[in-house]
Amino acid sequence: MFTSRPIGFVQSLYKESKEIPKGLGAKHEAEGVLTILPEFETGLTDIDGFSHLIVLWEFDRSQGFDLLGTPPSDNRPHGVFATRSPRRPNPIGLTIVELRRRDGADLHVRGVDMLDGTPILDIKPLLSSIPAEKLRRGWLAEAEAHKK
Amino acid sequence: MFTSRPIGFVQSLYKESKEIPKGLGAKHEAEGVLTILPEFETGLTDIDGFSHLIVLWEFDRSQGFDLLGTPPSDNRPHGVFATRSPRRPNPIGLTIVELRRRDGADLHVRGVDMLDGTPILDIKPLLSSIPAEKLRRGWLAEAEAHKK
Repeated sequence: MFTSRPIGFVQSLYKESKEIPKGLGAKHEAEGVLTILPEFETGLTDIDGFSHLIVLWEFDRSQGFDLLGTPPSDNRPHGVFATRSPRRPNPIGLTIVELRRRDGADLHVRGVDMLDGTPILDIKPLLSSIPAEKLRRGWLAEAEAHKK
Repeated sequence: MFTSRPIGFVQSLYKESKEIPKGLGAKHEAEGVLTILPEFETGLTDIDGFSHLIVLWEFDRSQGFDLLGTPPSDNRPHGVFATRSPRRPNPIGLTIVELRRRDGADLHVRGVDMLDGTPILDIKPLLSSIPAEKLRRGWLAEAEAHKK
């Protein structure tokens, strides 16, 4: 296995977890900056051509994990691998952001749901999409239907 | 930072990297099994309701990283964060698979592009999609256009 290392850090308006929109219908439209460390900047070559990026990052302010948990969007517990809970065996978060512009080692993005200072582990281009009509969304769709 | 730990392993027909379809137009339709370790099985509760899963896994047969590399789908070098190269600062791979059925701790999936025995780091439900018409795909779209 491997020991993670940051390739950069998130600049976000969110200083505490409670400030991040959560639960049903939460929108992630916040702008922020992914600041890549100078030694990795060359790895950003040609990233400007992509509209959306997959950002992998570390839940660095979360400790331990729970196999079952009740997410903010439901009142029933679900398995950790069926949720986006921060308390995971490997504390890796994933966010898809829209790339607005690149300024050297700074990626200005939209759709940030990370805390300020979050360590970034990896960035990958989003190359394709599953059509929305092909997605089944399990307990989340049930919770949304129940709310209506 | 953290030290990664496997939550399970991939069962795949691919024993060597050269067997995995790569390059422009490569289709990932192979079936395989994600076998979760018994101590994490409870974390799969309610995962059956989702059609598509995001699998994070370790490039365990890759060593070191390159900031620039030429992918199988192009003849020009690109930054590692603009490609899906296995040689990354944090050796984390990402695959979106279709969940066909769950059998206890075994998830039978379609869309496997990992080698047999690959350690799985995390599984997350795919909750939404970016509409295909909103995706800009940079150098990959250029390489596709050039091939026609």
